Amino acid sequence: MSAHPTFEQMWAELAPIGRSATTGGYFRQPYTAAELECRAWFTEQAVRRGLRTEVDGNGTLLAWWQPEGAAGPAVLTGSHLDSVVDGGAYDGPLGVVSAFAALDRLVADGLAPARPLVVAAFPEEEGSRFGVACLGSRLATGVLSGDDAARLQDADGTSLLDAMASAGVAPDLGPAAWLSEIGVYVELHIEQGRDLVHRDAAVGLGSGIWPHGRYRFDFTGEANHAGTTHMEDRRDPMLTYAMTALAANKQARLSGNRATFGRVAVEPNGTNAVPSRVSAWLDARAEDETALSTLVTGLSRQATERAERDRTGLQITAESVSGAVAFDEGLTSRLATHEGREPWPVIPTAAGHDAGILSTAGIPTAMLFVRNPTGISHSPAEHASTQDCLAGVDALIEVLERLLTAPADGSP
Amino acid sequence: MSAHPTFEQMWAELAPIGRSATTGGYFRQPYTAAELECRAWFTEQAVRRGLRTEVDGNGTLLAWWQPEGAAGPAVLTGSHLDSVVDGGAYDGPLGVVSAFAALDRLVADGLAPARPLVVAAFPEEEGSRFGVACLGSRLATGVLSGDDAARLQDADGTSLLDAMASAGVAPDLGPAAWLSEIGVYVELHIEQGRDLVHRDAAVGLGSGIWPHGRYRFDFTGEANHAGTTHMEDRRDPMLTYAMTALAANKQARLSGNRATFGRVAVEPNGTNAVPSRVSAWLDARAEDETALSTLVTGLSRQATERAERDRTGLQITAESVSGAVAFDEGLTSRLATHEGREPWPVIPTAAGHDAGILSTAGIPTAMLFVRNPTGISHSPAEHASTQDCLAGVDALIEVLERLLTAPADGSP
Repeated sequence: MSAHPTFEQMWAELAPIGRSATTGGYFRQPYTAAELECRAWFTEQAVRRGLRTEVDGNGTLLAWWQPEGAAGPAVLTGSHLDSVVDGGAYDGPLGVVSAFAALDRLVADGLAPARPLVVAAFPEEEGSRFGVACLGSRLATGVLSGDDAARLQDADGTSLLDAMASAGVAPDLGPAAWLSEIGVYVELHIEQGRDLVHRDAAVGLGSGIWPHGRYRFDFTGEANHAGTTHMEDRRDPMLTYAMTALAANKQARLSGNRATFGRVAVEPNGTNAVPSRVSAWLDARAEDETALSTLVTGLSRQATERAERDRTGLQITAESVSGAVAFDEGLTSRLATHEGREPWPVIPTAAGHDAGILSTAGIPTAMLFVRNPTGISHSPAEHASTQDCLAGVDALIEVLERLLTAPADGSP
Repeated sequence: MSAHPTFEQMWAELAPIGRSATTGGYFRQPYTAAELECRAWFTEQAVRRGLRTEVDGNGTLLAWWQPEGAAGPAVLTGSHLDSVVDGGAYDGPLGVVSAFAALDRLVADGLAPARPLVVAAFPEEEGSRFGVACLGSRLATGVLSGDDAARLQDADGTSLLDAMASAGVAPDLGPAAWLSEIGVYVELHIEQGRDLVHRDAAVGLGSGIWPHGRYRFDFTGEANHAGTTHMEDRRDPMLTYAMTALAANKQARLSGNRATFGRVAVEPNGTNAVPSRVSAWLDARAEDETALSTLVTGLSRQATERAERDRTGLQITAESVSGAVAFDEGLTSRLATHEGREPWPVIPTAAGHDAGILSTAGIPTAMLFVRNPTGISHSPAEHASTQDCLAGVDALIEVLERLLTAPADGSP
């Protein structure tokens, strides 16, 4: 038996941090007080287990388990601790808490790992503060340059560098040296959909991630008095935006893909003023890259035509675009089956993950999903049963044991 | 010659206060630092002219000129000093600065007024901080109760009472005692439209104000992951809002009225989250009350039908509704003509003013408008030429002289 807190105890420790009493949702934007409390919790868990801790120059938290005899490329597991604005409890923390719980069981079972195990928490996975999702893994892999990241600001104009420094994290943005020591990555995550419900399984593996992108649409017009300005004399960017939001939904519906305008900023945002500017962010995802390109190109053309009709301006900026990800197929199919249990289903996802970034960068990667009864995510209503969470921990224990005792070529 | 600053000097004193270096627009929301500086400027102008100053419990600034021999119902003039968010320089301050300039000329000309003159600056005319336009005059006249106003909060949750108290204004919200001493009100204002341009006149009088209202539309849905949630499974309030914004524009265009959605608040407002709530404010104005009611009722029906289709919720709250205003017809027609000049044109307006509230409350009221070459208002681009502003001051001097020397029944 481990003397360390159980999964349920760790879960209870994290539960109140950054939770809104009004909505029940989580506000754990990177380097805010709540997220710093989560980071301190991570370090405390690592230290009490005697793990070697490390914070890289991108703000990624790492905890190394390397008992005598463990050498060569390490097995990386974990997820993230930050949340979307008013998000759920499971998206991110489930993978981190499960990692510590799985490690405790491996130690208690007396496992002698052939390779080191690293537990990680990547910063700003959601992109909810600085606008770039998977910020930590993009920097670690060089997908995003340190110079580009140094220019990032939050909505209040605070730079990423200042936010890190004031949180006591010495920023040194760019490719991470530790990545060269990683042989394989496994991320456990709550499912953001209902595929596992339909397949009647508590746990599944990910086949890959749909390509997706975030595009900022800046619609510009002319501020004017909402009462006295004739409708015909207006250049009202709200109208161009409204048509674009409806068109995005329709196009995604008809093509079986996803398009969402969930974030809007209006200037001057006064009841009695025609707006001078409406900025809106498109989140678009599709089953393959051709479909994504067709969706975004078609919508851009419709919006541009409407802007001409409204005599408004439109500028479209791709803030982040991620290609399709296929997780390591050999690894995933080997992990899917194991003696003594049913094979785990292998399902795709339309959500981005640090696992996708690492996979694209050439790290053999697999994802474990835990069943989500409603499929709801990025919302206070996000939920998984404790029983299914513990089934996820068991699955992670099995996977880590196989990987930690596998030969150095990584095949479990 | 007056020893007091000229119109142009006073204008130059106010010009930098609350002006954004980025947009050139004004941010003079009530009880913010910029607006408090404007209020201090008002008091300084009054004190240097030896006027008796008064701040009522609603935050209205008053400056009384009552030389010996002046008695009975007073002549009130003025306007407001607060602005919309990122507004123009003229909307409000033009009437206040013109009032002091006109008073200086009357004193310099040796006028012996039969009645007192009061210069006023009403607070929160724009409703840009606490959401109720013409807040000062609504309270003074009892149109809005002190209890209701005490519940008002700004977007940050600061109550009107706290904002006033922290600005050093002792709140005592409710009907104003001084109003019983007022016999007539004249408000000078920049025109918010181009009627005077078309009539080739620097100055005109107002016939009345279109009825108008502000309505909050709260669209509610279900927050969810923007990537993983099937389009068919969503309850996305952004779509219901977008359709409503387009419908509002179309209805107003077809009926020759005005409808604007210029203010929007989205929750959680994250790029990768389907919103749980979109609140949007409709500003609607029409030529008469039947037309306004038809417009708002029709739009509410369309929005409700769409909400059913989108499986979203919709609650519509009328935040403030003002009936049609007809300014005092006899007074206006008498003021329109005077020997030695062309008659002033008499024009309607779709903009709300404290003059409308006082007129509806039974105070004989007239409005003077100053030409606006572009018609643009509630925008940094709002402008009137200095020559036209000085023509406005001359017009106000003429009107005040006629009113201050008229018999007590008020007919100039």
